[in-house]
Amino acid sequence: MLLIVGSTGIAIQKCDSTGHFMNTDDVVAIEEPLEIRLDFGTVNNRQIQNVAVTMRTPGNDAELALGFLFTEGIITHHQDIASAQHAFIACAENRENVIVISLQPHAVANLGKANRNFYTTSSCGVCGKSSISAIRTVSTYTADSNYDTITAETLYHLPTILRNHQDVFDTTGGLHASALFTPEGELLCVREDVGRHNALDKLIGYALQNNWLPIQNKILLLSGRVSFELVQKAAMAGIGIIAAIGAPSSLAVQLAKEFNITLVGFLRNQRFNIYTAGHRITNY
Amino acid sequence: MLLIVGSTGIAIQKCDSTGHFMNTDDVVAIEEPLEIRLDFGTVNNRQIQNVAVTMRTPGNDAELALGFLFTEGIITHHQDIASAQHAFIACAENRENVIVISLQPHAVANLGKANRNFYTTSSCGVCGKSSISAIRTVSTYTADSNYDTITAETLYHLPTILRNHQDVFDTTGGLHASALFTPEGELLCVREDVGRHNALDKLIGYALQNNWLPIQNKILLLSGRVSFELVQKAAMAGIGIIAAIGAPSSLAVQLAKEFNITLVGFLRNQRFNIYTAGHRITNY
Repeated sequence: MLLIVGSTGIAIQKCDSTGHFMNTDDVVAIEEPLEIRLDFGTVNNRQIQNVAVTMRTPGNDAELALGFLFTEGIITHHQDIASAQHAFIACAENRENVIVISLQPHAVANLGKANRNFYTTSSCGVCGKSSISAIRTVSTYTADSNYDTITAETLYHLPTILRNHQDVFDTTGGLHASALFTPEGELLCVREDVGRHNALDKLIGYALQNNWLPIQNKILLLSGRVSFELVQKAAMAGIGIIAAIGAPSSLAVQLAKEFNITLVGFLRNQRFNIYTAGHRITNY
Repeated sequence: MLLIVGSTGIAIQKCDSTGHFMNTDDVVAIEEPLEIRLDFGTVNNRQIQNVAVTMRTPGNDAELALGFLFTEGIITHHQDIASAQHAFIACAENRENVIVISLQPHAVANLGKANRNFYTTSSCGVCGKSSISAIRTVSTYTADSNYDTITAETLYHLPTILRNHQDVFDTTGGLHASALFTPEGELLCVREDVGRHNALDKLIGYALQNNWLPIQNKILLLSGRVSFELVQKAAMAGIGIIAAIGAPSSLAVQLAKEFNITLVGFLRNQRFNIYTAGHRITNY
């Protein structure tokens, strides 16, 4: 049985439509916890803080941690990052499940901005409107108004290109994917994970590592549905066009509209729906 | 346009395979934040604590909050619950986005057990093994060894029955579902949400409200993939059989095995895979 990174083999029973049971081997997507630690402070006064634990598919852990810290507003610049390394832990089994992001001595860690700030403001409890306002406060970028337009023809082809590069999904059927394309439909990067937010964090972390932020003049393709959280991450990275194979939620549409992000859903079988900012898509 | 609870109408553009654009109305699944507050303490010394904010599809909020608090190990008994009510907030827009669960004066709120305990232990950082051990510590129930067996024939029919009861998915394509069935395949309850963990929390919250816990001699059906988190919630509720239309992750399989939970995946087109505890399924 051929195994690739991110998957593991197990013994299962298959049952077919005639009620026949068969013992066989199968491949499943790996899910393991990753603890993200932030190492920050001045040269003489460093501290390490555990920021989050996320269930993820191992691989591209540094990208995942960087993308998470960036899209939560905790770190803001490529040049603030000193290193990203797995922690050495005595227990061999989990050595790869703790990653430490070290910041430069001058860098600021906005830990007060993390997480809950996106959902709630002190003024009037939680609602979609306050959630969107919170992101506007934290976000560094706005979608570029001079974005190149893309054609419907280009969009039609993206799902097939993505599918051909989803290595782990091919064998397990168990992974979400996020990918970046040029306006002409050329694939730049694809990342997979059991968690859809992790796949996008990995992609944005990759962009951050390569100093690509804000991500402008690119198409973000999502393999599944579009939630508020995914649009939030895209907005933080300055992404202007999101295309998804699945359906968007109401708050995903509202947030995309507020940030002038083009949101396309149900992109399959050479059809799609445009939910917001359709001016960036042409039909030739 | 017919709208049902949990969905909302918006104006979109549709693009077909010939590049033709058309303005039309569409329906999307509603996503809004819900803040869960816990009101606990003795008669003379009450306190209210914000426990979590989750992005969810409005509806069955009390069930969602109760299921969340129970599966996180914060509350443990049906009789500990005094009331579950939306908070009255001056700002009209978000009145329905805060829910307060009040405990009886005698009840204990295990807030120290919340959340991160499932993923990490102080001894040796995070790994799948420590995550599973943590659940074993918190969980009240174990899967009943005297479980009735179910037939392959019964399993074949479950996806169609679920699909016929997914009201919001029908119109939006945007929702996950969790459902409970009897061993004979009779549908007992179905809940939908933009978040798969929320759909299961609603279902378990419903069971808790009706004093059904532990949920024994029932089949849990999940509309999508099976992550560690979903098996964790099922294990907390004492569920012994999980069937899913999608793929399980590696850690979902490990956790199911440890808890002697029967885990079925890829249940579609009258076929399925058995990952763990196959002794509860027969072929006649």
